[in-house]
Amino acid sequence: MRRLLSLPEDGVSDRPDAQDEFVLSCPIPISDYPVVTLAHGGGGRLMHQLIDRMFGPAFDNPVLREGHDGATLPTDGRRLAFTTDSFVVSPIFFPGGDIGTLAVDGTVNDLSMCGARPLYMSAGMILEEGMPMDGLWRVVQSMKAAAEEADVLLVTGDTKVVDRGKGDGVYINTSGIGVMEHDLEIGPTRVAPGDAVVLSGDIGRHGIAVMAVREGLAFESSIESDCAPLWEPVAAMLNAGVTPHCLRDLTRGGLASSLVEIAGQANVHVRIDERAIPVRQDVEGACEILGLDPMYVANEGRFVAFVPGDQAQAALEAIRSCPVGEQACVIGNVRDDDRDLVTLTSSIGATRVVDMLSGEQLPRIC
Amino acid sequence: MRRLLSLPEDGVSDRPDAQDEFVLSCPIPISDYPVVTLAHGGGGRLMHQLIDRMFGPAFDNPVLREGHDGATLPTDGRRLAFTTDSFVVSPIFFPGGDIGTLAVDGTVNDLSMCGARPLYMSAGMILEEGMPMDGLWRVVQSMKAAAEEADVLLVTGDTKVVDRGKGDGVYINTSGIGVMEHDLEIGPTRVAPGDAVVLSGDIGRHGIAVMAVREGLAFESSIESDCAPLWEPVAAMLNAGVTPHCLRDLTRGGLASSLVEIAGQANVHVRIDERAIPVRQDVEGACEILGLDPMYVANEGRFVAFVPGDQAQAALEAIRSCPVGEQACVIGNVRDDDRDLVTLTSSIGATRVVDMLSGEQLPRIC
Repeated sequence: MRRLLSLPEDGVSDRPDAQDEFVLSCPIPISDYPVVTLAHGGGGRLMHQLIDRMFGPAFDNPVLREGHDGATLPTDGRRLAFTTDSFVVSPIFFPGGDIGTLAVDGTVNDLSMCGARPLYMSAGMILEEGMPMDGLWRVVQSMKAAAEEADVLLVTGDTKVVDRGKGDGVYINTSGIGVMEHDLEIGPTRVAPGDAVVLSGDIGRHGIAVMAVREGLAFESSIESDCAPLWEPVAAMLNAGVTPHCLRDLTRGGLASSLVEIAGQANVHVRIDERAIPVRQDVEGACEILGLDPMYVANEGRFVAFVPGDQAQAALEAIRSCPVGEQACVIGNVRDDDRDLVTLTSSIGATRVVDMLSGEQLPRIC
Repeated sequence: MRRLLSLPEDGVSDRPDAQDEFVLSCPIPISDYPVVTLAHGGGGRLMHQLIDRMFGPAFDNPVLREGHDGATLPTDGRRLAFTTDSFVVSPIFFPGGDIGTLAVDGTVNDLSMCGARPLYMSAGMILEEGMPMDGLWRVVQSMKAAAEEADVLLVTGDTKVVDRGKGDGVYINTSGIGVMEHDLEIGPTRVAPGDAVVLSGDIGRHGIAVMAVREGLAFESSIESDCAPLWEPVAAMLNAGVTPHCLRDLTRGGLASSLVEIAGQANVHVRIDERAIPVRQDVEGACEILGLDPMYVANEGRFVAFVPGDQAQAALEAIRSCPVGEQACVIGNVRDDDRDLVTLTSSIGATRVVDMLSGEQLPRIC
């Protein structure tokens, strides 16, 4: 057998015409974005463009079109929720948790936001050659503890190792399956005028905790991630007879991006009151030092519930009955005077439009 | 707010005693393996050690304990299969497919090996900053085509972007849900003496195709990956009334590693005949040049079925009725004279023990 010629580096034979047509068919204009940027993963406008123009149309189907963080699957009898998330947080360890805690809680929370009781989980580990073995062991212990706390079974997994310099210690994908124990439709398109917006607690701690380690900062009082499983407060609401229209955990892009996203999907005007939004003083101070707006900082144990206005009190009481939701409060409502808009009444009484950032303030926060 | 002190780099406060105890509790001896090596992801002995000692005990439960490539979940009424796989193949594009094709077919095949009809899939994309946008578009198109061919719906997804130099273009995790349309228990522990071992076609093409691009080689006749969805031949077997004991696709570690793994899990002696195993002449030649044994080279469209001996002919006919299985053949059987052993009768009539490699011949092949 003779070696004849070298293949082109990408292994694709040259077909210039097809290539040109192909490039022209790319739904993200190559002239604007010839390559992927960090902002394409930031939870902001560029990420939504990538999803809405490239991924969405390619895989279009009624389940995906719901635009929720998880898919609700019709099966015989009970409905299932199915969700996936990859975790690339840097650094891997931070005050209040690590990538393992995050990987379990993140998927537990995506299922919870579908209104589904989390049951089963998969774990796909992408390890970098040279990852310290005791660090991996620590991450696995955190996953175990988080899975036990959330009462989910890790039932299948996969392990890959990539060359040194082609990863960053460990990346974890978790996918989850949950079961809907009710007949409610919960999703952004159900949000309607008159809904109250309930926030489950103070915002900004996760992002600041990660950022502090990354920048080598420490504050007078240590700020720990709010990382926590959220099924308990959701179950408490459902058990109390609350019929939430939409639930959303406030991860990448924070509270602001989540609200803008939902307002767009539901085509409604969400009005919130800045004074009602709890932000710890040390988080507020850290945000000032770092030049961040807590409204856009990621949380990993916080969510908003859009509930019918007359259920706001019942929702509050249910969420507050759980340790993770003790500080829950109503932060706004859905109006009927406008469309696809989030406005905020500031602490000095002025009203401004809340927009989505194009990228993110803090890359690799989850 | 004052900056007080720097946290240690990993964000974990120093607790030397706890740290020592913790390191001692690590089930992989740190003195032997202080860090993760490429071999820990290679499908060989080291990967099994990592899974059996660290991941398995940490997440122990009856579903995980089955030791299959996917989990079978009891739900009301029908049983579901659930599986996950991350794809880190390098290079991303290779003759006969790309990472997108692989990501869809890989998970379709893991579900098929559970005996489940693939229905739904998730996609978690980890993109590297700087990934060419048209390359991503090509990968997405491949995923779309592969999903359509396999008749699965991609219903949920996630996108992360990591900094330049912390990834390698794109890594993809896919998780899948399938449904069992029968009452059979299919898994390695069901393999029993008397079973015939049916191989669905020639081996070694995927690994060689990827390796050729990576090494910049081209052979006289181009070798394309065998990447293909495998539900069709499995369904054909089930429809023909065949009751397979175990199904396994021959990915990382190839045919040899799969057989050794199954023999261990079932505690049986598998005897195979080298002369019966189809290897294309150009693949054989490439293996010689590259110093590889085709028995250990990864495939992405090949599987073995362990079926009761008297069903071997029916299984063969069913698999051969599908284009992907035209070359199916019986390559051996399960004996009752020994335990946890794979032996191979070579082309010159000698018999030798087939072992698992500690790592892998070809890293990052899937």
